[in-house]
Amino acid sequence: MYSTPLDIKNIKIKDSFWTREQELVRREVIPYQWEILNDRVPEAAPSYCMHNFKAAGMLNKRKHEQGASFKEPVYTFRGFEALPEDPRNPREDEFYGFVFQDSDFSKWIEAVGYSLATHPDKELERIADGAIDIVCAAQLDNGYLDTYYIINGMDRSFHDLRDHHELYCLGHLIEGAISYYNATGKDKLLNAAKRFADHVDSVFGNEEGKIPGYPGHEIAEMALFRLYETTGEEKYRKLAEYFIDKRGEAPLYFDKEHPQPKNQPYKIDYYHQAHIPVRQQNEAVGHAVRAVYLYSGMADMARLTGDKALLNACERLWDSITNEKMYITGGIGGTHMGESFSFPFDLPGDTAYAETCASIGLVFFARRMLQIRADRKYSDVMELALYNGILSGMALDGKSFFYVNPLEVVPEACHKDERKFHVKPVRQKWFGCACCPPNIARLITSLGTYAFTASDDTLFTHLYIGSSLSFNGYDIDIESGLPDTGKVKIVTRSTGGDSPLNLALRIPGWCGDSYQLSGAESADITVKDGYLYISGLKGDNTISLDLKMEAAVVTADNRVTEDIGRCAVVRGPVVYCMESRDNGDALRNIYADTSADIKEITIEDFGFPVTALEIRGARVTFEGSEEYISALYKKAPVRKAEPIDIRLIPYRLWANRGEGEMSVFIGIL
Amino acid sequence: MYSTPLDIKNIKIKDSFWTREQELVRREVIPYQWEILNDRVPEAAPSYCMHNFKAAGMLNKRKHEQGASFKEPVYTFRGFEALPEDPRNPREDEFYGFVFQDSDFSKWIEAVGYSLATHPDKELERIADGAIDIVCAAQLDNGYLDTYYIINGMDRSFHDLRDHHELYCLGHLIEGAISYYNATGKDKLLNAAKRFADHVDSVFGNEEGKIPGYPGHEIAEMALFRLYETTGEEKYRKLAEYFIDKRGEAPLYFDKEHPQPKNQPYKIDYYHQAHIPVRQQNEAVGHAVRAVYLYSGMADMARLTGDKALLNACERLWDSITNEKMYITGGIGGTHMGESFSFPFDLPGDTAYAETCASIGLVFFARRMLQIRADRKYSDVMELALYNGILSGMALDGKSFFYVNPLEVVPEACHKDERKFHVKPVRQKWFGCACCPPNIARLITSLGTYAFTASDDTLFTHLYIGSSLSFNGYDIDIESGLPDTGKVKIVTRSTGGDSPLNLALRIPGWCGDSYQLSGAESADITVKDGYLYISGLKGDNTISLDLKMEAAVVTADNRVTEDIGRCAVVRGPVVYCMESRDNGDALRNIYADTSADIKEITIEDFGFPVTALEIRGARVTFEGSEEYISALYKKAPVRKAEPIDIRLIPYRLWANRGEGEMSVFIGIL
Repeated sequence: MYSTPLDIKNIKIKDSFWTREQELVRREVIPYQWEILNDRVPEAAPSYCMHNFKAAGMLNKRKHEQGASFKEPVYTFRGFEALPEDPRNPREDEFYGFVFQDSDFSKWIEAVGYSLATHPDKELERIADGAIDIVCAAQLDNGYLDTYYIINGMDRSFHDLRDHHELYCLGHLIEGAISYYNATGKDKLLNAAKRFADHVDSVFGNEEGKIPGYPGHEIAEMALFRLYETTGEEKYRKLAEYFIDKRGEAPLYFDKEHPQPKNQPYKIDYYHQAHIPVRQQNEAVGHAVRAVYLYSGMADMARLTGDKALLNACERLWDSITNEKMYITGGIGGTHMGESFSFPFDLPGDTAYAETCASIGLVFFARRMLQIRADRKYSDVMELALYNGILSGMALDGKSFFYVNPLEVVPEACHKDERKFHVKPVRQKWFGCACCPPNIARLITSLGTYAFTASDDTLFTHLYIGSSLSFNGYDIDIESGLPDTGKVKIVTRSTGGDSPLNLALRIPGWCGDSYQLSGAESADITVKDGYLYISGLKGDNTISLDLKMEAAVVTADNRVTEDIGRCAVVRGPVVYCMESRDNGDALRNIYADTSADIKEITIEDFGFPVTALEIRGARVTFEGSEEYISALYKKAPVRKAEPIDIRLIPYRLWANRGEGEMSVFIGIL
Repeated sequence: MYSTPLDIKNIKIKDSFWTREQELVRREVIPYQWEILNDRVPEAAPSYCMHNFKAAGMLNKRKHEQGASFKEPVYTFRGFEALPEDPRNPREDEFYGFVFQDSDFSKWIEAVGYSLATHPDKELERIADGAIDIVCAAQLDNGYLDTYYIINGMDRSFHDLRDHHELYCLGHLIEGAISYYNATGKDKLLNAAKRFADHVDSVFGNEEGKIPGYPGHEIAEMALFRLYETTGEEKYRKLAEYFIDKRGEAPLYFDKEHPQPKNQPYKIDYYHQAHIPVRQQNEAVGHAVRAVYLYSGMADMARLTGDKALLNACERLWDSITNEKMYITGGIGGTHMGESFSFPFDLPGDTAYAETCASIGLVFFARRMLQIRADRKYSDVMELALYNGILSGMALDGKSFFYVNPLEVVPEACHKDERKFHVKPVRQKWFGCACCPPNIARLITSLGTYAFTASDDTLFTHLYIGSSLSFNGYDIDIESGLPDTGKVKIVTRSTGGDSPLNLALRIPGWCGDSYQLSGAESADITVKDGYLYISGLKGDNTISLDLKMEAAVVTADNRVTEDIGRCAVVRGPVVYCMESRDNGDALRNIYADTSADIKEITIEDFGFPVTALEIRGARVTFEGSEEYISALYKKAPVRKAEPIDIRLIPYRLWANRGEGEMSVFIGIL
């Protein structure tokens, strides 16, 4: 019995924690991002995103005016990221930025749509409509819409599926268009997206004369399934299925497109999850964002087709990620080489990639697995990623961002060690490759669609977020103390009909099945896969659920070399970390007494109350008495331990008080 | 009072330890290398070294035959490493291999020279003479001799000093030519080297019309000083001094040659030690081999000119390396990014570069500093590098080699983690870029010139290596128990003259000034900077020196993050390591009881007796009882400690018994 997300308009979020984040996105990130798309933020790298659409639109217009005498541009490769000589004076008829720059608009319009759905805003809608006009003017008559090739020459379009991002741009365009259509009922952009999809459908496939390829960066798969679910048009489902079925088929398409040098140590097909057919894949590999986007599409397909082999692959890949390749923050991508998964249990903290976007993609994957079967193994991870590895991506003021979310930082190393140049000790204003900030925006504005899904007769609550919604003839109000307390209150009011209400409430793994339920005495109660099924509620009810939330010490699997002899401290879904601001520098010298009680304290350092923790420990150093060969090494080391109270703050808040050391894992005394 | 190395012919090494290594080089490495230079080893990458000399010689011959009608090749860049389509069928008139491929011959002939000096070998000399004929036939009339440009087009020669290696090839050619001349008295190659140096001298310099540049890869500096000391010709000294003085002068020559993109995180001039003038340099930076080759040349210049500012810079750079940037194995180069020094105290074990050649260069630098002033801080490091980070570079059978000498290896990571692809868990047959094996060969064959230097009246013993030599009217026999015992016996016999004998014997830092001396009662004895000066010996004497050699636990400076809470075990100059063959896998779980006695045992695993060590310790793991979010992380960890005896072998011997884990540093219990 599959479930689906609720209509976003049906969910009003008013949550002690998340409302702040949503308002931040609505008031700061979305307007700021529009300025960015238009290259109006002096201190940020120009995006050239709207510039490119305008350039393509101009070319398009000229073509229509000149008719047969129009001379098509002949393709010239201008680098994966093309930049003008003078960044502030781009030529008006040239393409600039990354090959996938169009997707910045799509991610923005997606967030705008979600925001408008719950917070109508005439001025924002007017701006969005204007942007859509510019974008649509760039579309070719045949439906093609990727400004990189429209401007640089269509003769090479779809010739580099592996490294260029035309199908990726299609996917984001679809997602953005659906969001905006759902919010406003306006279908101009949706029609443009459909025309682009129709064109791709006419060009790709197994049939003679068609391109037998598939996306180099996945996302079109899940977007096309969503387009199918939005429009009911089978061809979009079929196209998505083709992309998924075709991937990894021998001989490998990308190898034909890009003949690979022999004896290369790194097989590029793994990077693209295209090394073997998806149903045979057992291990999450390659570029982490690409991977979880693909797996999300696979889960959609498994749900829509009932394909067991595909579902089994999704489950194996889920387990591969969460049992072998996930940081305790919900971060994924153990290596910056290819922004990729490393081998199982290779989860270094200081060279981590753990891209914000990858954790967001993990949330996408989780929600889709939950739609197939409610199991807290999915929702626990979804919640973990949200409260830790995703929120860490955005500063408290919504104005700077992490792309990479390390678990350990020594600023000197980030500044001086090339191996760690990808790790930033403070959040950055904006990135040339701006995937993470708009991805955070579209996730946070659509959070309600992750918190709840519904089957015909049951409302599933996967995340506890203060909300009001209606379902099957009931108005439902949810209050949540998370992440500070595990207290949840659910008030249900019948609005007429006489069908009973069935709720499925997640019992998070972190409470260790210690919880108290009251107010549902009249209903049938069963527990399955970490969900509490409350069936047959009638009339008005006030249900209280008290989830035990206690700070706890956690160790990683012993095969995680990096974390041997170290522990992390968690409380509910929140992972904590040390910062040198609270604990002094040289955090590696700090060891925790794991047998000691963990004290909860409230701190005001961040402008609002935050639950911090304190645990007893010591600063341990070894001092030798006699040089061995040089001053670097000394004989006869004597252990010195200075007792300290270790202060811990939620990981998501690190680097909001200036630059300093940070570590999630702490030595065990 | 400066000292100089003894004539290599004056030193007969017969040492219980080093004779084996020298014989290995003489019997295995030198003949094997000749086969390599001629591309006759099927399982190794072709070198193309002699091929290139032949191709250049052919071109040269054609030029002489055709006279004015000869058409000079116009330069075409064929990659930093040019390879033929079919590696076994190179075109006979093309250049292949790295731009510095010529230097492979020069390193080989240098080792051949040292070997012939002490072990005359008619057949080897005949082969060498033939090789020299081939090389000299490639030399242009103006003296230029670098086959890369002779073949690819001289119009661009000396246009890429930063990245191409013409002056590097000059340096190696000089070193090789001097070695062969000293051994055989034959000056054909020496004259070729002088002619190339004369040409460079006519082309480089501050004068109008000359190239105001300097080597991108240093070595010519120290080679030219040696050429000056060999020939007495001032111009070579002046040219070397020009190269050293000019380096880092603003505006930077390499920046003019290769305009650098703005905002690049990594300043390439640091890589080449060309960021500021050498006398202002305080920190060892950039490519480690380049750095120590430069510093060696600087030390030569400081000695030859008495330049105090330069000597001070050498001392600061020495301290920067040994007090902040040296692995306990004598390895240098903390990062593979640019095969470079990392920032101070950044010495990761598992991603180390610690190139064999860099440690060899450190020995060059040390010997030159010792010539200026005998201080054991130099000779201790020289010995450390020799017994550890250099010998580790060669397998026991002399047939496979490490380029990179890590302090910690988990083979799975080397195979699967791109960040560690430079780290090999087993020695490799031969490298396309074959700097390390021939560098080991030339160092080991000339070891006597590092063990001893002499001033007018004093013989300095820097390393204890069993040898016979004569000095100032005395025959001196040295017996040494190193590295197994610290017992040294020195027998001196007067051969006539009546001048007294003065000896300066190093008291190694590792013995902690615990030693016993006997047999020198008739002489004056003083101690300075770790040297025991025995002055005024007369007649025949038998001196015994017993240096206390005990296994000891050592910790790194607390700022070496990687080694916090861990220790290494050393015995005399030998650094020990764990291998999984002796201790099982997952070496990171092993902790040593540093208060326990360290047991010395003799093992036969390597085909000869080796002193191994055992220390009490435990294998510690943490096991949690309750999953947190996924199976990767568990709450309520319980510490389990299984007592074990940790077996340690000398680091130089690791990876001689198959592939497995290795670690020098061990957790402290």
